[in-house]
Amino acid sequence: MTNALDVVVLDVNETLSDLAPLRDRFTDTGAPGHLLGTWFAGTLRDGFALAAAGRSRTFKDVGAAGLRGLLTGLDLDRPVEDAVTHVLGGLPELDVHPDVPAGVRALVEGGLRVVTLTNGSPSQSQALLERAGVAELVEQRLTVDDAGRWKPHADAYVYAAQTLGVPRERCAMVAVHPWDLMGAATVGMTTGWIDRTGSPWPDVFDRPHVAGPDLPAVAQALLDR
Amino acid sequence: MTNALDVVVLDVNETLSDLAPLRDRFTDTGAPGHLLGTWFAGTLRDGFALAAAGRSRTFKDVGAAGLRGLLTGLDLDRPVEDAVTHVLGGLPELDVHPDVPAGVRALVEGGLRVVTLTNGSPSQSQALLERAGVAELVEQRLTVDDAGRWKPHADAYVYAAQTLGVPRERCAMVAVHPWDLMGAATVGMTTGWIDRTGSPWPDVFDRPHVAGPDLPAVAQALLDR
Repeated sequence: MTNALDVVVLDVNETLSDLAPLRDRFTDTGAPGHLLGTWFAGTLRDGFALAAAGRSRTFKDVGAAGLRGLLTGLDLDRPVEDAVTHVLGGLPELDVHPDVPAGVRALVEGGLRVVTLTNGSPSQSQALLERAGVAELVEQRLTVDDAGRWKPHADAYVYAAQTLGVPRERCAMVAVHPWDLMGAATVGMTTGWIDRTGSPWPDVFDRPHVAGPDLPAVAQALLDR
Repeated sequence: MTNALDVVVLDVNETLSDLAPLRDRFTDTGAPGHLLGTWFAGTLRDGFALAAAGRSRTFKDVGAAGLRGLLTGLDLDRPVEDAVTHVLGGLPELDVHPDVPAGVRALVEGGLRVVTLTNGSPSQSQALLERAGVAELVEQRLTVDDAGRWKPHADAYVYAAQTLGVPRERCAMVAVHPWDLMGAATVGMTTGWIDRTGSPWPDVFDRPHVAGPDLPAVAQALLDR
């Protein structure tokens, strides 16, 4: 076995969790369901803006502020602040994509340590993994709040490797988001892309080392390297 | 007059230009018009991701890559690449918001130098200002491509002030985007927020020094300081 990896670092939002049920949280309030995509992109935009400018706020705070802006002026069935609370209240109730448990098990059975690293909260990572029945297979739930910078700033990945006591070169980052893998690659990590929707890789980022349509496929590709 | 400002730096996309006509470019191809908001937020997200990770690509490249991803798998009336070209082809044809010419004139008549600083291309800034009849009032069209980092990375604003030969403290950044003003403030610039839609200021960013519903109002507030 020539595999030089010790640890696989899993992203959480959208990589493990399926955000689709949040769509109903928007429509519950009278807002259009398609705002989910705009809101999530805008939350990352503002969090990355803070990271680029050398600052940091929690995902919850950034997400709430962006949501307030998007929902203001819409014809809702409740006050904006109540609608914000309702939409964000869906985050802790999300479930993993169906392919996740088998993928996590494959990584662990392949001899790799598995952790999560999220721009969100570690308590949500924990609840998500518990509901999926794989919490005991995931050694640690790390958050960028402890790094002081959101991914894809280098500090977030360096923090993870240091906390794990592993050289970055022996870590693989696995995510659905190309920007996350771009960031992990800048610090020397191996990268694995889960592309569940068959979307093309955005050519403004360096290509990932391995890719596949789900976590088991990416796990196998990492184990085969 | 106690005003210590020499230069007003205007953002371009959405601050001067009205992106609304791009909605029709999406629907022309068979894509839903609401993708405009998701696409623009996603383009900034990916550009800021590069900035946070210490990298940079042009707005056009980042915007095209994101658009390709969003349009793939939709029921379009043409190939994805043609749809990407059609949507991006709307960018150089945008016009300014109606309040912009009077606002630029007010700044110049108030004795301030006026320049633009965009995450996009300076040729589009130039064409936009020419169509609005105020190109001769705007001393320079700066782009972050020459800074090596997109706004809101500090390098972008420092580059602008250095190019203008003015201390940052004597520059004011004016934009509709809170993240842009957050970035300008980190390097000591005065900030002016145009809030044309009555949206609340996102409380994850420090508040701007002045604000108003259009460029003339923000111009007056800057001149009154």
